Amino acid sequence: MKGAAYVGEGLLKTVSTDVEPPGPGELQIAVAYCGLCGTDLHIVHGHMDARVRTPLVFGHEMSGTVAAVGAGVEGWQVGDPLTVMPLVWDGTCSACLAGHQHICQNLEFVGIDSPGGLQQRWNVPASIAVPLPADLDLRTAALVEPVAVAVHDVRRSELQIGDRAVVLGGGPIGVLIASVARDAGAHVMVAEVDATRRSLIAGLGLEVVDPSSADLPAEVERWTGGVGADVVFEVSGAAAAARSTTALAKVRGTIVVVAIHSAAREIDLQRVFWRELRVLGARVYQRSDFDRAIDLLRRGRVPADALITGVVPLEETASAIDDLGAGRAMKILVNVAGEAQA
Amino acid sequence: MKGAAYVGEGLLKTVSTDVEPPGPGELQIAVAYCGLCGTDLHIVHGHMDARVRTPLVFGHEMSGTVAAVGAGVEGWQVGDPLTVMPLVWDGTCSACLAGHQHICQNLEFVGIDSPGGLQQRWNVPASIAVPLPADLDLRTAALVEPVAVAVHDVRRSELQIGDRAVVLGGGPIGVLIASVARDAGAHVMVAEVDATRRSLIAGLGLEVVDPSSADLPAEVERWTGGVGADVVFEVSGAAAAARSTTALAKVRGTIVVVAIHSAAREIDLQRVFWRELRVLGARVYQRSDFDRAIDLLRRGRVPADALITGVVPLEETASAIDDLGAGRAMKILVNVAGEAQA
Ligand SMILES: [Zn+2]
Ligand SMILES: [Zn+2]
Repeated sequence: MKGAAYVGEGLLKTVSTDVEPPGPGELQIAVAYCGLCGTDLHIVHGHMDARVRTPLVFGHEMSGTVAAVGAGVEGWQVGDPLTVMPLVWDGTCSACLAGHQHICQNLEFVGIDSPGGLQQRWNVPASIAVPLPADLDLRTAALVEPVAVAVHDVRRSELQIGDRAVVLGGGPIGVLIASVARDAGAHVMVAEVDATRRSLIAGLGLEVVDPSSADLPAEVERWTGGVGADVVFEVSGAAAAARSTTALAKVRGTIVVVAIHSAAREIDLQRVFWRELRVLGARVYQRSDFDRAIDLLRRGRVPADALITGVVPLEETASAIDDLGAGRAMKILVNVAGEAQA
Repeated sequence: MKGAAYVGEGLLKTVSTDVEPPGPGELQIAVAYCGLCGTDLHIVHGHMDARVRTPLVFGHEMSGTVAAVGAGVEGWQVGDPLTVMPLVWDGTCSACLAGHQHICQNLEFVGIDSPGGLQQRWNVPASIAVPLPADLDLRTAALVEPVAVAVHDVRRSELQIGDRAVVLGGGPIGVLIASVARDAGAHVMVAEVDATRRSLIAGLGLEVVDPSSADLPAEVERWTGGVGADVVFEVSGAAAAARSTTALAKVRGTIVVVAIHSAAREIDLQRVFWRELRVLGARVYQRSDFDRAIDLLRRGRVPADALITGVVPLEETASAIDDLGAGRAMKILVNVAGEAQA
């Protein structure tokens, strides 16, 4: 069997992997597809060398079927379609005890802190496996994890029907947040600097602006009839975007920080005070977000086909990472099984 | 009759004021006491010259009695004790229509944008007058407005019984927030750099630390058993304090921005994201905050006597402003009526 592993020093290799039978409480998964995301890029570019142990088979946006069932595991049969919610919490820290297991203070992220889905056979604790409906194709199902991120972000914002939401950053997560917000009844404007991404977004029927050429606060003021946005999602990670959030939100508006910001950012706290704004962090997802993401994908409420700009074999994972790093793609899936699949 | 007015160029003067009868819909107030606050300092120091029209009789933390009742005003009699909630909203902007009149986009702040309470006879719209109970002495009642600020800040934080709250800044508003939070069942730690203020705060039975000598995040971690604070109130306006907020709050903790920050501040958005923090602006008060403030003062749940470090005649307003600016006082009241009062 085969896998793709980060071996350190910015190097990714296709490796041959041993197939161990699933341990007690585990499922062995025949991985079908595994999507690549920004975190995977960070791993391969060596930015997370202090955290990961090499060689690391990474990947956490996957779909597959049950290949074998470990001792003591109930409710699963060989062939059942599934995905994985890649979080393992300790269950004992103050965050867990308060019901926020998804942001456990000792959270293990599967595919970063332990082996992930870029391998043909993958043993995982049955507790993190999420069943997929039979009528959701496995290619689309590889998007469940990023859609769950978007669902979590939108739920955290408490966005209401008819709200006007601005999404700063039109990469895959930004487009998914925009799609989920629109499905929840909001009007959505996406700000994205890349022209190719802007045309893809416009093609989805979403309002889109170039924040590098337009006066974004003025655009949002015009678009909201002088009121300001109900919700602003900061998905870009850029300092200028973070700075602009407070200028875009209405009185008592909400700003959701979705992106990873590598340094402290200048924020206009005077405006936070003056308009009684609300700034919320939103990270990963809860189990109900996974279930909602599956439901949205099954009902075709997320533009999965438009977002998946490429499907590559396992051997081309490295060049897919290059394409993503260069901004030449939105979402690339790795066909891990290596066959023509449904 | 007399008043104190800011006449421009950093100058404050005692002036003689005409007594006009109250217009239709107005009450004429015989002002008893008027407290001085940070905003008054800003006015007198010339920092708000672009906003205020001189000469300006300022002051907005007052108590008094009805001296005359204008045409069409019902429910008030000469001699009734009262205070003023110094906000006039337009009632038509999007903030007002959404029920957030207190942060109306065209808010008039009485005592800044129109004449205030530092005069012996003051005509105000009856709509902004708030009745005081007969058993609340007028000296204590001059604190209703700042206590209402504290009530608003604590209510906005959604602080729960048993929570651990950190207050950054131990001036009058910080101490009031700490007192209101404690009365709401929270454990409170105040961080204050000034030694005199620290002893006053310690004398109130509140936990207090010097953030300039202690490692505040480590102190808060110890104090909260490694969890972090449920709520952090940023009352200091200092860049370092703003920066520290994200290090003090627990997972899903709340940071309330109470202070005015004169410049954009560096905020650790990565921590906001990682811990799913919530940053809330909190400005002035709503009418119910005034009613709750009156109730707290009446029941003696706020250390009014400890906070009022001086009462001066109208003629000494300028030197009181100097004392406040130099940090030689907490709350100074001006005895506007100029007599020995209850
Ligand atoms: Zn935990
Ligand atoms: Zn208004």
